[in-house]
Amino acid sequence: MKTDIQIAQEATLVDIREVAKSIGIHEDDLELYGKTKAKITDSALEKIADKEKGKLVLVTAINPTPAGEGKTTTTVGLGDALTQLGKKSIIALREPSLGPCFGIKGGAAGGGYAQVVPMEDLNLHFTGDFHAITTANNLLSALLDNHIQQGNELNIDPRQVVWKRCLDMNDRVLRNTVVGLGNKMDGMVREDHFVITVASEIMAILCLAKDIEDLKNRLGRIVVAYNFKGEPVTAGELNATGSMAALLKDALKPNLIQTLEHTPAIVHGGPFANIAHGCNSVKATKTAQKLADIAITEAGFGADLGAEKFFDIKCQMADLKPDAVVLVATIRALKYNGGVAKSELNTENLEALKCGIKNLEKHIENIKKYNVPVIVTLNAFVSDTEAENEFVKNFCESKGCEFALSKVWESGGQGGIELATKVLDVLEREEGNFTPLYPFNLPLEEKVEKIATEIYGAAKVEYEPLALRQLKKIKEMGFDTLPICMAKNQYSLSDDPTKLGRPENFTLHIREVYVSAGAGFVVALTGSIMTMPGLPKVPAANHIDVSNDGTITGLF
Amino acid sequence: MKTDIQIAQEATLVDIREVAKSIGIHEDDLELYGKTKAKITDSALEKIADKEKGKLVLVTAINPTPAGEGKTTTTVGLGDALTQLGKKSIIALREPSLGPCFGIKGGAAGGGYAQVVPMEDLNLHFTGDFHAITTANNLLSALLDNHIQQGNELNIDPRQVVWKRCLDMNDRVLRNTVVGLGNKMDGMVREDHFVITVASEIMAILCLAKDIEDLKNRLGRIVVAYNFKGEPVTAGELNATGSMAALLKDALKPNLIQTLEHTPAIVHGGPFANIAHGCNSVKATKTAQKLADIAITEAGFGADLGAEKFFDIKCQMADLKPDAVVLVATIRALKYNGGVAKSELNTENLEALKCGIKNLEKHIENIKKYNVPVIVTLNAFVSDTEAENEFVKNFCESKGCEFALSKVWESGGQGGIELATKVLDVLEREEGNFTPLYPFNLPLEEKVEKIATEIYGAAKVEYEPLALRQLKKIKEMGFDTLPICMAKNQYSLSDDPTKLGRPENFTLHIREVYVSAGAGFVVALTGSIMTMPGLPKVPAANHIDVSNDGTITGLF
Repeated sequence: MKTDIQIAQEATLVDIREVAKSIGIHEDDLELYGKTKAKITDSALEKIADKEKGKLVLVTAINPTPAGEGKTTTTVGLGDALTQLGKKSIIALREPSLGPCFGIKGGAAGGGYAQVVPMEDLNLHFTGDFHAITTANNLLSALLDNHIQQGNELNIDPRQVVWKRCLDMNDRVLRNTVVGLGNKMDGMVREDHFVITVASEIMAILCLAKDIEDLKNRLGRIVVAYNFKGEPVTAGELNATGSMAALLKDALKPNLIQTLEHTPAIVHGGPFANIAHGCNSVKATKTAQKLADIAITEAGFGADLGAEKFFDIKCQMADLKPDAVVLVATIRALKYNGGVAKSELNTENLEALKCGIKNLEKHIENIKKYNVPVIVTLNAFVSDTEAENEFVKNFCESKGCEFALSKVWESGGQGGIELATKVLDVLEREEGNFTPLYPFNLPLEEKVEKIATEIYGAAKVEYEPLALRQLKKIKEMGFDTLPICMAKNQYSLSDDPTKLGRPENFTLHIREVYVSAGAGFVVALTGSIMTMPGLPKVPAANHIDVSNDGTITGLF
Repeated sequence: MKTDIQIAQEATLVDIREVAKSIGIHEDDLELYGKTKAKITDSALEKIADKEKGKLVLVTAINPTPAGEGKTTTTVGLGDALTQLGKKSIIALREPSLGPCFGIKGGAAGGGYAQVVPMEDLNLHFTGDFHAITTANNLLSALLDNHIQQGNELNIDPRQVVWKRCLDMNDRVLRNTVVGLGNKMDGMVREDHFVITVASEIMAILCLAKDIEDLKNRLGRIVVAYNFKGEPVTAGELNATGSMAALLKDALKPNLIQTLEHTPAIVHGGPFANIAHGCNSVKATKTAQKLADIAITEAGFGADLGAEKFFDIKCQMADLKPDAVVLVATIRALKYNGGVAKSELNTENLEALKCGIKNLEKHIENIKKYNVPVIVTLNAFVSDTEAENEFVKNFCESKGCEFALSKVWESGGQGGIELATKVLDVLEREEGNFTPLYPFNLPLEEKVEKIATEIYGAAKVEYEPLALRQLKKIKEMGFDTLPICMAKNQYSLSDDPTKLGRPENFTLHIREVYVSAGAGFVVALTGSIMTMPGLPKVPAANHIDVSNDGTITGLF
């Protein structure tokens, strides 16, 4: 069987200028990065400002197995299938993080015959967006520490610096550090922390910013520390806004690449799906919607995290109105949710399926709360049996939901024709009437409660004393009307990753609350969230290589 | 008066494909980065493998004032002047470091009407080469710490880790850090240090590597630590070679941009000129020489550091034979070397000039030791007087040296016609017969002594006890035949930056010696060298901004 990178390297890519032309973008409105990658300039966007928007489809998933359920693969395959059906479709994805490529996880560009390419470039430096974010993030840190060093006019309390340095690297020893050792000229000693670049607030900001002006406003609002009086100190007060924005000006432009079948793919931004909102950039999604008849996008983790934040944060902030949702499930994940051990997922087990399907049921109910039609798709695995597929199909139909089997991993767009046809049916038949779960002006606790009870199915919410104090402070600072970004594990609808299926009567515990004032949301943490991964005993890096002709191997 | 960035932004750039075409590179052999930057692919280089090489001219300088003497400006202006004279010329420069742009120093793209453009891109992310180096450097660190964490099979002594993390940022608090704090899962605690990216050994490696194979061999040889027995541990033993090379594969390709007058400029690599060899990449220089009739390159700092390392390290390693040297002086620097205070440099002072010209004299003598003809040029300032210029001209002629006044800052290529004419004369008249100062197989101490006495003019060399122990160990490790990379201040020919002019009868003190086994040289430190700069009280970052249309201001 061929690996993803083998399939990707065997593909014949068309010149990205041809891909752009197919969606009405002239070569002059591209900034090329080699022959198969380009940034779409603002001039292109200005030319289509008056064009009518296409439909917007979100691809999300049930709670996954640790291997994931193939959201990106489905997104890519659906795009290719729609293209095969003669629809002008564009997919809008997140950019993958570089660090994890050297750890366990392979690339994040879809899989099998439903991939975006060039796969190696996308997973390594791509067009440099993440490097720009790393640099802007660390410039802010350097300016902050330099401010403390050079007299500390703003009275920053070195014990209350909340801004962290970042690297796009899995590097556990950087989680907790002490900086500023040495002598007087080497800075003020303080404890510091590094996060992986995708966890930087600047990543979330880039993905939510409408334009450079909005970007600068958001950057300026970042709370970097508190002073000795406990008052917030912002990036704007450190005079860091303009130089950070200068570093980010090109990163703000959406990237255009293609699928294996040459469907245009706008791949841009990639914030964490726990401490951030987990969606690609607003600019990318809006551009895709403007240029296509149907724009297909995805959100990170399961629908409880990904779709909820897509709807309540991204759509509300950017005035997006999704027209349909594709909910990806796998027989494996349904059985996993039904209590089957990872090692037993290849065996037919209708009892477990019957039990685990409650997870799917809950996600269908959740999405309907947003008044968006939902199509369920099973991402096929060779181990799935006909009886299992039939069971899921019947279940969906009993819930009044469209269902389609998807074989895009194996067959590319051809394997997604059934799904694409159902999506087209729904888009034609049903009028989307998107309604967010909550308006921004609800008090913070009520927003948390709505998410916890209505989406997760919790009975109640409990705050740890620290979280209560933080909540009080955040309100005093005037951030009561920001949306909530819930940081929760992705495996369970609850805050306990071992409670699979459809947990009920549980309490959601809020352990910590902080504000990402630049991104524009309040993060509520339900557990400890890892923002700097580590490498395993045998890292993938050990097997990555490049030949003398520049061919990369071992990225998988 | 217009600032450099204003002049650069007012320039009309031609499409980089046109620039490439003018030197015989087809569009298909370029990887475009927008409309005005491109990487030259290996396929382009293969096509010209049999072409005869052009002449190679090095631009270097006397010991400078703290403001620098305009080597890059002269290099650019000379290239433009040669183009005006109908010669196919290409300039080959180093890429500027991003970090210092946010501190005091402005961009490093020449100045006035002798600049390479796009200036902002070049000084910010450019084509991402430095980000790739940062990432490869920090991947090696992560793999090293992960190795210690996961059982430490190689018995790495955490007290003897010599590999440092890096960032392209002026960030003093990262000079001395402690990493690995937290609990067992957060790594082993140890002291660590960050250097600025240009000080990473990977930067030097990239600049000396012939191709991917050579790159990998060099990366694998990097000594990252010593084990508990005191034996070296290499990047190769950490299985880090392939993944680092994969990260660097695009960074290894030379970048093509243009001057304000559209002369092709290959701008690639930028190692420190103290702890590294301070030259642009071998690939860039060789490509320029292949494609042009005359390739003009430069080396960092004054000729005692820059030209010496260019000749003895870069030319010997890469089998380059320079045909002429342009030695840049300024009236200001000559007076500074004659003991005039910085504040008085604008006043005519023939006495000081007479005294300071001994610095120029020594550099002329030094270059002649390499059997390469030298042309002295005065980079004109408005404060220079006719009498001062005349004095320098007469001095050069008395030394049998060509002399030319250069007004390229003010007038671009037109201001360099006199210099270009002299350079052409010399290239036609004199046959270069380049001879390095020492062969690699001399013992390390003898190589140090030759540089110290013959180039710097020292009476003798003294080693501190630590340096002697290190030297012994380096020989035991088998590195006796590597060239010497001297780390010395740039202001004086001696190791004391206050000894200006032509110091004599001094002792050169070697305080520390270490091996850069991947780069392939032994670094001898004559004093403490700053490898991580800091920001000033009011950093340049405070004034950098970007407008809504993407125009950057405040980079100067």
